[in-house]
Amino acid sequence: MRTSTLAIMSAVIGSVAVLAAADGHISDKQIAAGIKARQSQMQLYSFNLGVLGAMAKEETPYEATAANAAANNLMSLVSLSQAGYWLPGSDSDSVEGTRALPAIWAADSKVGEKGKDFFDAVTAMQAAAGTDLGALQAAMGAVGKSCGGCHESYRKPRE
Amino acid sequence: MRTSTLAIMSAVIGSVAVLAAADGHISDKQIAAGIKARQSQMQLYSFNLGVLGAMAKEETPYEATAANAAANNLMSLVSLSQAGYWLPGSDSDSVEGTRALPAIWAADSKVGEKGKDFFDAVTAMQAAAGTDLGALQAAMGAVGKSCGGCHESYRKPRE
Repeated sequence: MRTSTLAIMSAVIGSVAVLAAADGHISDKQIAAGIKARQSQMQLYSFNLGVLGAMAKEETPYEATAANAAANNLMSLVSLSQAGYWLPGSDSDSVEGTRALPAIWAADSKVGEKGKDFFDAVTAMQAAAGTDLGALQAAMGAVGKSCGGCHESYRKPRE
Repeated sequence: MRTSTLAIMSAVIGSVAVLAAADGHISDKQIAAGIKARQSQMQLYSFNLGVLGAMAKEETPYEATAANAAANNLMSLVSLSQAGYWLPGSDSDSVEGTRALPAIWAADSKVGEKGKDFFDAVTAMQAAAGTDLGALQAAMGAVGKSCGGCHESYRKPRE
């Protein structure tokens, strides 16, 4: 758990160091691959949150096994190393095809804290999802709030 | 490990049952979400394989920490529950935007075995990646072969 949290905290902040050590410079290909990877990861968050959200809203019947699998998937995803995802120069001012605002890379960026909020909400969801519908519903708010907490400040609104 | 293997084996084969139990029918929205999710997962395989492949080909310097992180990511990804990914009616004959051949869903489908091959290759890579460059290079062949083994039979060639 602790390792995972640190992995998230360092995923954004530490990516420059990781890449610089490996290559010395960052190519357009690396930028494009990182953007595609982080967007794919967001899609998988969305997919699993969709399963949990549909149950929380009682659009689909509550099923402990499926809820638990979705919550476990979220925990696995949030624990992935994101080295290479958030490269400097991969913001919405620098390249096409991303809504990641430059504020992510600013000195006063709170993305590490935001990532920690999401990790904590997913941890709580993992404990709750397989228990019963009420527990799942109670855990859903913090998950949604943590998604929004980052998107509001660090994702460019659609034009 | 055993649970993960079973999860993969059942991911394709068991998805019908999972969805049918939850909803009774499969909507176009579920089909589209499943396709997007499985393509996102393939992207994340590709991203992490790219890190390992570049080191194996000595295009980027070998770095044990980064190699290990990429291999661990692959293991986390291959262990995700894929329930909802491979829905009947989500093949390349039925819908646009997918290259997943109908043979995946055929009675004599070998996708479970192919998934097991990939899982085994990733397990070996996880043990090798952080050791040294030679070990990584030796483990790479089986990973590539297992990707190709499924793609050759079950992925429609690009037109």
